[in-house]
Amino acid sequence: MNELEIVARLKRLSQPSKGLTLGIGDDCAVFRPRIGEDLLFTTDQMIEGVHFTRAQSASSIGERALARSLSDIAAMGGEPRFCLVALAASDTSWIEAFHRGLLRLAKRTGTALAGGDLARDEKIRCDVMVCGSVPRGKALRRDGARAGDSIFVSGKLGKPWDRRIQPRLALGVALRGLATSCIDLSDGLSLDLHRLCVASNVAAEIDRVPVSTGSTVERALHGGEDYELLFTSSTAALPRGVTRIGRIVRGKPGTIHFQGGLLEPRGYDHFGQHD
Amino acid sequence: MNELEIVARLKRLSQPSKGLTLGIGDDCAVFRPRIGEDLLFTTDQMIEGVHFTRAQSASSIGERALARSLSDIAAMGGEPRFCLVALAASDTSWIEAFHRGLLRLAKRTGTALAGGDLARDEKIRCDVMVCGSVPRGKALRRDGARAGDSIFVSGKLGKPWDRRIQPRLALGVALRGLATSCIDLSDGLSLDLHRLCVASNVAAEIDRVPVSTGSTVERALHGGEDYELLFTSSTAALPRGVTRIGRIVRGKPGTIHFQGGLLEPRGYDHFGQHD
Repeated sequence: MNELEIVARLKRLSQPSKGLTLGIGDDCAVFRPRIGEDLLFTTDQMIEGVHFTRAQSASSIGERALARSLSDIAAMGGEPRFCLVALAASDTSWIEAFHRGLLRLAKRTGTALAGGDLARDEKIRCDVMVCGSVPRGKALRRDGARAGDSIFVSGKLGKPWDRRIQPRLALGVALRGLATSCIDLSDGLSLDLHRLCVASNVAAEIDRVPVSTGSTVERALHGGEDYELLFTSSTAALPRGVTRIGRIVRGKPGTIHFQGGLLEPRGYDHFGQHD
Repeated sequence: MNELEIVARLKRLSQPSKGLTLGIGDDCAVFRPRIGEDLLFTTDQMIEGVHFTRAQSASSIGERALARSLSDIAAMGGEPRFCLVALAASDTSWIEAFHRGLLRLAKRTGTALAGGDLARDEKIRCDVMVCGSVPRGKALRRDGARAGDSIFVSGKLGKPWDRRIQPRLALGVALRGLATSCIDLSDGLSLDLHRLCVASNVAAEIDRVPVSTGSTVERALHGGEDYELLFTSSTAALPRGVTRIGRIVRGKPGTIHFQGGLLEPRGYDHFGQHD
């Protein structure tokens, strides 16, 4: 198969989508926004040897690549609209399987494949950009946490790295107007909560964390790739499946205490340690 | 520098932009579309050893990475609004220089840096997604060429690969309502015209091509990375700087004749040869 044939095949496999007036196969995709919607944009890379190995199936890697970006859309309270996929790989059947996995999740979440870019390279690498939408002014941000808010997480933390990611899209939508701030847990609670607190200019006190079966408190506090939502709210009337873990307080921005002791942000940072 | 510090620095360097209500530093960027605009989306990868080598300066690679995507926006008649940059590299000063080059061109073209993703890897690779806009229904597409239209290109073809790319944004805007179809020359005239003809279900006859000084007709026909616009029109009242090179005819879709002989699409395809 050459590039034209691969693209023609992906075009047949992708779903049509409202608003996407021109999809795969031109220089650009064309999207017609609805009146009254804000659009959300996020992009996430996955690199062989950094984020996955070739031992994992191509379809699971494709699904995970989309799921990571969808988790960012969830964290902003958005509904996914479409994605663009940039992929470098050397084997056309691997490329097909990757897209099969990605398109399965895309279909389940209403995400159209609008286009992308293919390149041939021995080292596999992909980048998935997702556009989501949210009613005007309703996006959940990191910078709205206020002293007195409670801190919550969805699900349990410290889950094994290589499981299937379930982006918390329905919860994100349900939190519109309820959460004062929100972030997805991609790099570990201690680092992601630190980021949220820095953005909001506040500090935090954590009492406890819901630990995944077979995991440890240490992993739940610092392990990455949980893809649950961490959010703050001043109301107790919240959706099911969330756990209150602490509170936002005044203090040096970004400082976190856990059960009385200082909690260092030790989650995953690509370019260095925090101190 | 750790990731937070690099991101904080990029945030300071990036320009504000109309419509971008939330830029770098949250899970997603938030963009508020104007009423009556269609949005254009494109993404392009650049990989060390495939598209560039480390001998080139980081700033020239950053500029080129954005320019390639801007050329796709130009080909659709769009004006750039913002970009997302996914970058894998190992050296923070290289990352800074890359963004310096990219942001210089971004500033010149009114493109905001809205966000991105950084990863540490020995092999350098980037992917630049650009969002552009065009008045509703005015995007230039590949599929509108009709028998009887003339075929035009901007500039001269067969230029050396490693020069600076000047995306033809002003020309693209000027062609709204004048061109019946348009594509940018990224993979060579013979292959890109073939793609345009297949999309439009027509054939083409080429009489001549404008050859860049020091280049050859062969390179002008098949060489990639010219980033000029190739378009069709039924009017002669066109902007300056474009050359009529032939005409659209009925025939087997995608067939091209050059000076009476069949012209094979031999431009660059990542995944195989065309026959």
